[in-house]
Amino acid sequence: MKLPSMPAWLTHYQRQWLSGDLTAGLIVTVMLIPQSLAYAMLAGLPPQVGLYASVLPLVAYALLGSSMTLAVGPVAVASLMTASALVPLAATGSPEYVALGILLALMSGLMLFAAGLLRLGFLAYFLSHPVISGFISGSAVLITIGQLKSLLGVALPSGNAFGTLTALAQSLDRINLVSAGIGGLALLFLVVTRKWLSPGLKRAGLAPKVADLMSRLAPMAAVIAATAYVAASGVDRTAGVSIVGAVPSGLPSPAFPALQWQQMNSLWLPALLISLVGFVESVSVAQSLALRRGQRIQPDRELLGIGAANVASALSGGYPVTGGFARSVVNFSAGAHTPAAGVISAVLMALVIAGMTGWFHYLPHSVLAATIIVAVTALIDVDTLKEAWHYDKADAISLLLTFAGVLFIGVEEGIMLGVVLSLAVLVWRSSRPHMAVVGRVPGTEHFRNIDRHQVDTLPGLVALRVDESLYFANAQLLEEKIETLIQTTPGTRCILLILSAVNQLDTTALGTLTELEKSLAARNIMLQFSEVKGPVLDRLHSTPLGKRMKNRIFLSTHQAFLAFTDAHALSMDTARRTPWSSMH
Amino acid sequence: MKLPSMPAWLTHYQRQWLSGDLTAGLIVTVMLIPQSLAYAMLAGLPPQVGLYASVLPLVAYALLGSSMTLAVGPVAVASLMTASALVPLAATGSPEYVALGILLALMSGLMLFAAGLLRLGFLAYFLSHPVISGFISGSAVLITIGQLKSLLGVALPSGNAFGTLTALAQSLDRINLVSAGIGGLALLFLVVTRKWLSPGLKRAGLAPKVADLMSRLAPMAAVIAATAYVAASGVDRTAGVSIVGAVPSGLPSPAFPALQWQQMNSLWLPALLISLVGFVESVSVAQSLALRRGQRIQPDRELLGIGAANVASALSGGYPVTGGFARSVVNFSAGAHTPAAGVISAVLMALVIAGMTGWFHYLPHSVLAATIIVAVTALIDVDTLKEAWHYDKADAISLLLTFAGVLFIGVEEGIMLGVVLSLAVLVWRSSRPHMAVVGRVPGTEHFRNIDRHQVDTLPGLVALRVDESLYFANAQLLEEKIETLIQTTPGTRCILLILSAVNQLDTTALGTLTELEKSLAARNIMLQFSEVKGPVLDRLHSTPLGKRMKNRIFLSTHQAFLAFTDAHALSMDTARRTPWSSMH
Repeated sequence: MKLPSMPAWLTHYQRQWLSGDLTAGLIVTVMLIPQSLAYAMLAGLPPQVGLYASVLPLVAYALLGSSMTLAVGPVAVASLMTASALVPLAATGSPEYVALGILLALMSGLMLFAAGLLRLGFLAYFLSHPVISGFISGSAVLITIGQLKSLLGVALPSGNAFGTLTALAQSLDRINLVSAGIGGLALLFLVVTRKWLSPGLKRAGLAPKVADLMSRLAPMAAVIAATAYVAASGVDRTAGVSIVGAVPSGLPSPAFPALQWQQMNSLWLPALLISLVGFVESVSVAQSLALRRGQRIQPDRELLGIGAANVASALSGGYPVTGGFARSVVNFSAGAHTPAAGVISAVLMALVIAGMTGWFHYLPHSVLAATIIVAVTALIDVDTLKEAWHYDKADAISLLLTFAGVLFIGVEEGIMLGVVLSLAVLVWRSSRPHMAVVGRVPGTEHFRNIDRHQVDTLPGLVALRVDESLYFANAQLLEEKIETLIQTTPGTRCILLILSAVNQLDTTALGTLTELEKSLAARNIMLQFSEVKGPVLDRLHSTPLGKRMKNRIFLSTHQAFLAFTDAHALSMDTARRTPWSSMH
Repeated sequence: MKLPSMPAWLTHYQRQWLSGDLTAGLIVTVMLIPQSLAYAMLAGLPPQVGLYASVLPLVAYALLGSSMTLAVGPVAVASLMTASALVPLAATGSPEYVALGILLALMSGLMLFAAGLLRLGFLAYFLSHPVISGFISGSAVLITIGQLKSLLGVALPSGNAFGTLTALAQSLDRINLVSAGIGGLALLFLVVTRKWLSPGLKRAGLAPKVADLMSRLAPMAAVIAATAYVAASGVDRTAGVSIVGAVPSGLPSPAFPALQWQQMNSLWLPALLISLVGFVESVSVAQSLALRRGQRIQPDRELLGIGAANVASALSGGYPVTGGFARSVVNFSAGAHTPAAGVISAVLMALVIAGMTGWFHYLPHSVLAATIIVAVTALIDVDTLKEAWHYDKADAISLLLTFAGVLFIGVEEGIMLGVVLSLAVLVWRSSRPHMAVVGRVPGTEHFRNIDRHQVDTLPGLVALRVDESLYFANAQLLEEKIETLIQTTPGTRCILLILSAVNQLDTTALGTLTELEKSLAARNIMLQFSEVKGPVLDRLHSTPLGKRMKNRIFLSTHQAFLAFTDAHALSMDTARRTPWSSMH
């Protein structure tokens, strides 16, 4: 892949795009400030690490990514996965912990970038939607449970959902009521504004778009109000309300993280999983936004863009980033035309880091917890479960198992379980193919299931249609079906396989058919094929089976029936009309 | 599943079967004696453990298995896997090592038995044939390399193929020439008899079957000759030739192996993999033999049979067993009618253990190594590689990677790599479906690829046939294809998806189609389906998409074309004849 020196949006930038990009960049920044502080807390990292992850990564993505509206930066799920990867390796918040977070971003970035160069963008679609939904919902519930302790001002060790809830129940007497009060009020304010502010403003006459965007500023308002209250009242000293405290100002000088073999060895799997999840999420957000404007994104370039963003994050003291759902939607709605909006956010964030970090000193942790809880509960997705439950139980069960895996085993285990389940459902489904013995619809050249329709069959000929590609997991079943048919249909002289739905035929299935042909021939039963698809036929021709069967492969089932009547001195009139099956 | 109290072959045993079963039981025993000693050596276990694994397991399988001719007992690949599992945990041949081997058999047996009760027999077909072939060939090469040290009388640590060969090259000066001479002669004898004895005997007038069976007795002859030579010459004392030594006589008293949590924790994965590989191998051997006689085996009952055999092995001091290829073929050829042949082998083996173990004292290890090498080199399978290479490169590459994985990474890693490759090839293949824009073959109701045939199309209608089931890994590609078609075909008013080859439509693909339909509707482009398969249509009907599209799903593509001409006041005469594509 040739990397363009300058992205097209930049070289062809048009002036009329600027106002949309400026507005969107500003609004996203106002969302990004509390979110970057909150998600750093969720990841167990000091607040400035979240701020650092919100500057250079945005610029790197703007230069290499393909989406016009994806807002890159710290997100909830990747922060949870970061915490889950680092907690076993170092004390939360310690310098080693921070160094490991930076290393994790570097490794994830290099993996994504390498995958982009190898054009592995198609991997974005290798997780089924129900499994992604189960994983995100599980993560959201786990994050919410984990944030209860910050919301209530109780210090608790991290753990799985069950452990955290148990520990919390045992520590109810240690709740800091002032913290909990501030957090509870913030939560109430955020829920109310989320639910009623936008409709209220619309009824008051505001344009719907403006009303929606206004409601997105609520977290910033909560942060400002709570910070002002704590600073004025001094409850951090008098009542022990946990606050953010000193945040170093100034941008970190770019530095290459120290590489240690042993650390990399324990981080490669988490880095791989964060890359996979981050990439899949980014692509699905970017894609759905692009489609609304008739634009396209390129998964291979997304790998490069998100990969570069993570490398940039690592080089500037940040932690793993990816495209976030909520901020991207706001960016889109606020009128972002190009990634210039992201660059503008980055510049504004850099200004905040350079001179305004002191303002966050009195920000209470419980308010950050409230913003996280409101943000992630929006990610809990019951609709997909309902749809899947009605449409396809196997998908619904995959969703529930992935959800349960995240909550009760662990985040990494949950996503790995999801990958395995995606594949297992695929194999399980195609391993039991639908097969139908067919006959001719009287007077036509159409052939239908003898169990569903009144059709004509020829004595001695069994025509079997297989409704699935044939491969290692189902070839044996076809063989068994044919053996059963021969045993239940005395006098069978010919088995006609109708391969109209066989899109693939792998080496294992080819071997099974080769053995089957020989075994049938030894019993004076002829194997024939009809309606073989072009690509399958092309490959079949050069095989020993293809050569043996050269004159027994028919273009249409009708031709095969005619050939059988000729060969056995029958006429179509000798056809037997099948009775209606007792099943129908 | 109801377990029958007595198998049918036993309750309906016919006298005329007895001579075949007796002959087969006897010949298999003659093969089994040297093999059980040799495979125990390969597994790093004392010789008697191999003998113990050749008694009760045969009886247990006879009572519960479904194959009439499968010969159960110690086999090469499972012995290699046992060594690979136990070597990191205890000193080879130590009492703990033996105890772990017994525990491994117990765990594997319980897993298989449980899988049988859960009717998971279909798992036998979840590994592609090329991957199994690569795994077996890799194991055979690894075993051969590993046995070189016993053949040459050099003591070397175990390791992967490369390490063992390197260590061997550095120890060439420590070869025991007498051991190597005896082993070399045995190897030569076995190779010559294998290659020329049977044809020679046939030319001499023996019946082919008898000649084949005679050649199978060569290993026993080599064992007897070598043992007699060592006993008479005393080279074990004078030249340090390594011999089997004292083998305790008498049957072990059944005992339940000691269970320790920590040991079970390190053995569950090896036990699972041995179960999987052993089961897959057993079923494929049993199936191919059953087919030759028009019999069937039942994978679920095979799980119970092999599971019970392993539990029986553990209870009587043995190690993991499964159905072996070579002995099963001999059992079949020698005329075994029922598992009574296995019971007869078991009785004979019990007699050997009871009174004849002293005879193995002077048996040289180098001769056992020679019998192993000759047995496993027959398992190296180049034909499947050749076939796969011609037919399907992806399958051939899976085979080679699995082969290399076993040789250079490890046995367990190799089989896990194989499972992943089987699935990955499946997904990769169906993730890039063949799609064709079709038109009407003039004057017919047939529709063909516009790039391959001269066909009629209607202005404004794009008819796209998808040659693959739609699911999470390819749904997005369909959407992209349609967007590209719309951009390259101005004036498109209708997209007709021909779903004749879509056997499945999962929740993810349903979601993609639902979004696509909305997105097209917003652009005044109508989505239509034709030739939807029954099972797909049944499920589609109750979904929101199915309800929205109720009147836009056509039985045939022809009907969809007619409806389009009606709706747009066109006639089929307005169809445009497509030119021959520049591609053809």
